[in-house]
Amino acid sequence: MAKLRSVIIGATGLAGQQFIAALSDHPFIEISGLAASPRSAGKSYREALRTQNGMLAWFVQEPLSEKVANMTVVSGDAVKAGDYDIAFSAVEADVAREIEPRLAKDIPVISAASAFRYEVDVPLIIPPVNADHAPLVHEQKKQRGTKGFIVPIPNCTTTGLAITLAPLQQHFGVKAVMMTSLQAMSGAGRSPGVIGLDILDNVIPYIHKEEGKVEVETKKILGALKGTSIAPHPVKVSCTCTRVAVLEGHTEAAYVALEKKASVQEVAQAMREWKGAEVSRNLPSAPPRWIEVLDDPFRPQPRLDRDTHGGMATTVGRIREDGVLDNGVKYVLVSHNTKMGAAKGAVLVAELLRAQGILG
Amino acid sequence: MAKLRSVIIGATGLAGQQFIAALSDHPFIEISGLAASPRSAGKSYREALRTQNGMLAWFVQEPLSEKVANMTVVSGDAVKAGDYDIAFSAVEADVAREIEPRLAKDIPVISAASAFRYEVDVPLIIPPVNADHAPLVHEQKKQRGTKGFIVPIPNCTTTGLAITLAPLQQHFGVKAVMMTSLQAMSGAGRSPGVIGLDILDNVIPYIHKEEGKVEVETKKILGALKGTSIAPHPVKVSCTCTRVAVLEGHTEAAYVALEKKASVQEVAQAMREWKGAEVSRNLPSAPPRWIEVLDDPFRPQPRLDRDTHGGMATTVGRIREDGVLDNGVKYVLVSHNTKMGAAKGAVLVAELLRAQGILG
Amino acid sequence: MAKLRSVIIGATGLAGQQFIAALSDHPFIEISGLAASPRSAGKSYREALRTQNGMLAWFVQEPLSEKVANMTVVSGDAVKAGDYDIAFSAVEADVAREIEPRLAKDIPVISAASAFRYEVDVPLIIPPVNADHAPLVHEQKKQRGTKGFIVPIPNCTTTGLAITLAPLQQHFGVKAVMMTSLQAMSGAGRSPGVIGLDILDNVIPYIHKEEGKVEVETKKILGALKGTSIAPHPVKVSCTCTRVAVLEGHTEAAYVALEKKASVQEVAQAMREWKGAEVSRNLPSAPPRWIEVLDDPFRPQPRLDRDTHGGMATTVGRIREDGVLDNGVKYVLVSHNTKMGAAKGAVLVAELLRAQGILG
Amino acid sequence: MAKLRSVIIGATGLAGQQFIAALSDHPFIEISGLAASPRSAGKSYREALRTQNGMLAWFVQEPLSEKVANMTVVSGDAVKAGDYDIAFSAVEADVAREIEPRLAKDIPVISAASAFRYEVDVPLIIPPVNADHAPLVHEQKKQRGTKGFIVPIPNCTTTGLAITLAPLQQHFGVKAVMMTSLQAMSGAGRSPGVIGLDILDNVIPYIHKEEGKVEVETKKILGALKGTSIAPHPVKVSCTCTRVAVLEGHTEAAYVALEKKASVQEVAQAMREWKGAEVSRNLPSAPPRWIEVLDDPFRPQPRLDRDTHGGMATTVGRIREDGVLDNGVKYVLVSHNTKMGAAKGAVLVAELLRAQGILG
Repeated sequence: MAKLRSVIIGATGLAGQQFIAALSDHPFIEISGLAASPRSAGKSYREALRTQNGMLAWFVQEPLSEKVANMTVVSGDAVKAGDYDIAFSAVEADVAREIEPRLAKDIPVISAASAFRYEVDVPLIIPPVNADHAPLVHEQKKQRGTKGFIVPIPNCTTTGLAITLAPLQQHFGVKAVMMTSLQAMSGAGRSPGVIGLDILDNVIPYIHKEEGKVEVETKKILGALKGTSIAPHPVKVSCTCTRVAVLEGHTEAAYVALEKKASVQEVAQAMREWKGAEVSRNLPSAPPRWIEVLDDPFRPQPRLDRDTHGGMATTVGRIREDGVLDNGVKYVLVSHNTKMGAAKGAVLVAELLRAQGILG
Repeated sequence: MAKLRSVIIGATGLAGQQFIAALSDHPFIEISGLAASPRSAGKSYREALRTQNGMLAWFVQEPLSEKVANMTVVSGDAVKAGDYDIAFSAVEADVAREIEPRLAKDIPVISAASAFRYEVDVPLIIPPVNADHAPLVHEQKKQRGTKGFIVPIPNCTTTGLAITLAPLQQHFGVKAVMMTSLQAMSGAGRSPGVIGLDILDNVIPYIHKEEGKVEVETKKILGALKGTSIAPHPVKVSCTCTRVAVLEGHTEAAYVALEKKASVQEVAQAMREWKGAEVSRNLPSAPPRWIEVLDDPFRPQPRLDRDTHGGMATTVGRIREDGVLDNGVKYVLVSHNTKMGAAKGAVLVAELLRAQGILG
Repeated sequence: MAKLRSVIIGATGLAGQQFIAALSDHPFIEISGLAASPRSAGKSYREALRTQNGMLAWFVQEPLSEKVANMTVVSGDAVKAGDYDIAFSAVEADVAREIEPRLAKDIPVISAASAFRYEVDVPLIIPPVNADHAPLVHEQKKQRGTKGFIVPIPNCTTTGLAITLAPLQQHFGVKAVMMTSLQAMSGAGRSPGVIGLDILDNVIPYIHKEEGKVEVETKKILGALKGTSIAPHPVKVSCTCTRVAVLEGHTEAAYVALEKKASVQEVAQAMREWKGAEVSRNLPSAPPRWIEVLDDPFRPQPRLDRDTHGGMATTVGRIREDGVLDNGVKYVLVSHNTKMGAAKGAVLVAELLRAQGILG
Repeated sequence: MAKLRSVIIGATGLAGQQFIAALSDHPFIEISGLAASPRSAGKSYREALRTQNGMLAWFVQEPLSEKVANMTVVSGDAVKAGDYDIAFSAVEADVAREIEPRLAKDIPVISAASAFRYEVDVPLIIPPVNADHAPLVHEQKKQRGTKGFIVPIPNCTTTGLAITLAPLQQHFGVKAVMMTSLQAMSGAGRSPGVIGLDILDNVIPYIHKEEGKVEVETKKILGALKGTSIAPHPVKVSCTCTRVAVLEGHTEAAYVALEKKASVQEVAQAMREWKGAEVSRNLPSAPPRWIEVLDDPFRPQPRLDRDTHGGMATTVGRIREDGVLDNGVKYVLVSHNTKMGAAKGAVLVAELLRAQGILG
């Protein structure tokens, strides 16, 4: 069977490079196009990455393959949707707002950008958590009169939190969640991202718009698809998002009020045994378990645990009772913000949509 | 007037060095004795700090004065209380448990150790917050039949939190507080403290016993001295304490349920205008304001704000409404863990006790 | 006596902010003008520093005074030289190439930029090392037909090296120097400077054009003013310049071939006793000693030693024999790249020129 | 064929853990014994790693297998050589001095300790560089009257340097080398290793005894086995060894005087094409190339390049002419200090000795 031909929008940036890495050797998606800004257009991908100083600006750990290095970059404005079966979008929100709807006229667009996350006919999908929201794209196509559609993935800080809430919601119900994050620098990209002078020997206690995103997205993801829209879950969410001197992997200290009292053991068990939506379990990028619960009180740590199951698992530790919230429990989680929380998570969504027959 | 003659117990360690720095040029306390382990006894302080490799193990920023460098170190076991008017204790809890009661038979002991913090006849003092707990030492002396007494300072993570809660308690009442800390490495000392291999590009989500300390101490400090003991404040406290790659300055994300609804502006104003206990305001080590509220959304940051007013002020920013807790507000604070939170905070307690006529 | 009215070119950048800090409370220079790019022109300095996110982009440790915060910024293109007695330039080389000559028609320009460092009629001055090069500005004025002149300071990496070479040259003669630097991030500024993702848990072994600068500048600074130009010193220089995760303070491992054999003790003594050019000794910004030699084998360290004498002293340690070079000695130095190596070093040059009667 | 039964001495420390990782799935060596201090003896390896706080002190990236976790640790003093075919020693020099000779009476000991590196009948082997030194062990056995022998590997800082010098020596001859290292924290182990408070925002310009080790070892490794001893190579070596905030991977800036003039291209080619001793090329742990030369001027970087070919390759970049030394060239190298420079390098030596018929 022919592979799906994909185009990566914003291919030269850090997020775009992560898509290239995520799609290397994919069983049914191939990289057929690389789009970037007009000044890269016409160059080979390798030359587009070359800086004035002679540096090759390839930033992900995985090596750049010769095949991709030699592909010719096209301008994002000039991408012909007809040449591809699917687009992966790794551009900033303002650029996404222009390019994604144009492509979605013809093909599905899986996006890491926030531009359309909050629109009423747009599902926001983490496959094990809310695969059942995916059919909303039929409504989206109908309303917008398009052949394709847009499915964004959540903000990287939402992802790990929502995954750990899912089994709690299923078993005990969740009424409220308070979360303080210690986020990795890679979440800010490289243009210019977090400056070394700002973060060394320091914490930055604010990430622009991040807290609002987590609060809104968590409610949408845990919500229910009812007819032609998603009813947000009534859970209350309150966050403080900070940046720390970590390369990859967001750490989050969560405090959750449950509907129904649960012991530490019951919470751990619910997380450990959670398998997520059935359709999500055997996707090519799915990890053997979505959540790994660690007993060592010093875990999870971002450097040690972010790459668990290829960065696709959320690790959880320090599950304890919380004495303030109703039926309160608290725990710490680590989630890989640029793997499950970004490119690999978006590829997982594409895999889900295909398993659901929505894609290709 | 003659200065108070002080002896520093545990003088060669990092905490002891901070006491030496805190007492340099003090208006009414002089350093008259330096005590350490038997293997340092008899050496000059400078030689006691010299390692096998020839390094001078002096770790605080302030220079080591010639006078102190040339003092002869005595063994902690051999300190004669009669030679001093006051002792400052910078030893670990297990050592404190032996030495402090012995010294307290004759002289006041101000301690950074946790050994006696939770005893019923021992006040735990932050001068602007609970100066009125100090008279409990009279009860302590009576019960223990001593001429001296022990007054510990709180854990460094408690201090900043309790200071910010004080004006909230005063104006609006506090019902509950949830706090996630991002703590500096200096809090762990140097024996061996936090290992570089563990903390670089990482977060350690657990600090042994720290969370329990903050929970118990906050209630005690905000409590009321009633007769011969302190009634803990009924505020509920729940924490997650983590370690980050920061040298000095603990950052804490706090969420507080108030008894009475207050706007962000009212909370900021209450903190800004808070002067603390009257007796504490003009102590030599007191800062011009105990709390500095910052408007810049990216502040406070530990590296930029820890040294505010010589490390004696708590800086607060990002005051926002919290939608989960009753009358909830949330904010971020930075407190200097080894200045206000340790040696300089202990010297401040000595200053308070003197202003209250309890000391010397 | 009226103070010299100075204008700072590039006042909003990190280097410009360092000039503002360096000129706070200066005995005979006042800040009379602040120039920046056209988009800052007309705003108060405080507003020019405010980012879209509400952050006040003031990055130096010293607080921003109300007086400076309220000054109105002018466009660099519109600075009227007649309003000032001296200009301090903190712009990039390409901008300097345009603005500095225009201002130098009328007033002296002391510059941190590299634009004119290598021109034959331009002295490159470190006051204690080569104050006697300053008269070259008379030739410069004559040749260029200007009332003012341009005096650049060296690259921050050259400064500490040249200072330590000066006493060696004086006592023993220097034939060759090999140097590997471990440079702080602040040397790269903030636009974007060194990205946190690049430097954490890493070393970057290349700094664009840096090695060539050090090689050429060292020879010029140690050279001799002969008639209307400077004869470079014949010392051979070879460098490797690297970037490390340090905020401030360049560390350099130097290996020097001397003309005449000298023992480690003689080298240490030559450095310790070196007083530099007589005219430089009592300048307001001069430290009590230009070089501090440390005996502790673990020093100098950038974090512990960069601020020695207000960042104006070069600290040296680990002086040893070198067995490869002729009469070889080796040592490690730390120099504050944004104090003696930048703004404060430029202010020191202005002080020198005034003491020499060349300025004002 | 039965695998060689190996015992790891010092198995609970960081270096011992690296041996366990290096021997996982080895084609012809199995882990048959784990020895540590008496207080670990009798416990399962997992329990021996468990700290008082409940942490599992397993520090290498590779997971701890169930098989190894369940092995019973024996006391180093009680290891019976007869139970094993080979010992790998990962203890400190002072312990090595006692245990290694005892074991070597019966079995070969491959050691990461420095204890015996400088003895006249002990070869110091990097397989591609000086495999021909290995027969010295016959002389060692004869002189010491033992059935086994001791072969240490070099200091981790020597390894990368010696590997890059080998092709230069072969093609052009090396007369002198000057090297400044920027070493990773893992080289110092964990007891206590490098303290976070010391290294963050800092450089430590001294590593006890390191420079002397590199100077002596380089000459021995490049030397020639003549009869019953090794004649050191006459190359002069001068070093400055520093510690930086890097987890793994030593960076070294080298300057080399060649006997015969060589261009940058010739040097690069000599390194690129170097295959090392023939017997070393197909060893199980050998990388496809011992040296990778990088053209990007910003490489090698320790974080990006340390894991090249499983940490067994030395990466080189920035090859340039040096104007100070005779026929001088300079370059930067990165070598993985705990893989090729430690446990995996020691396993490679065992593989070599077996290929040479000296072992098993």
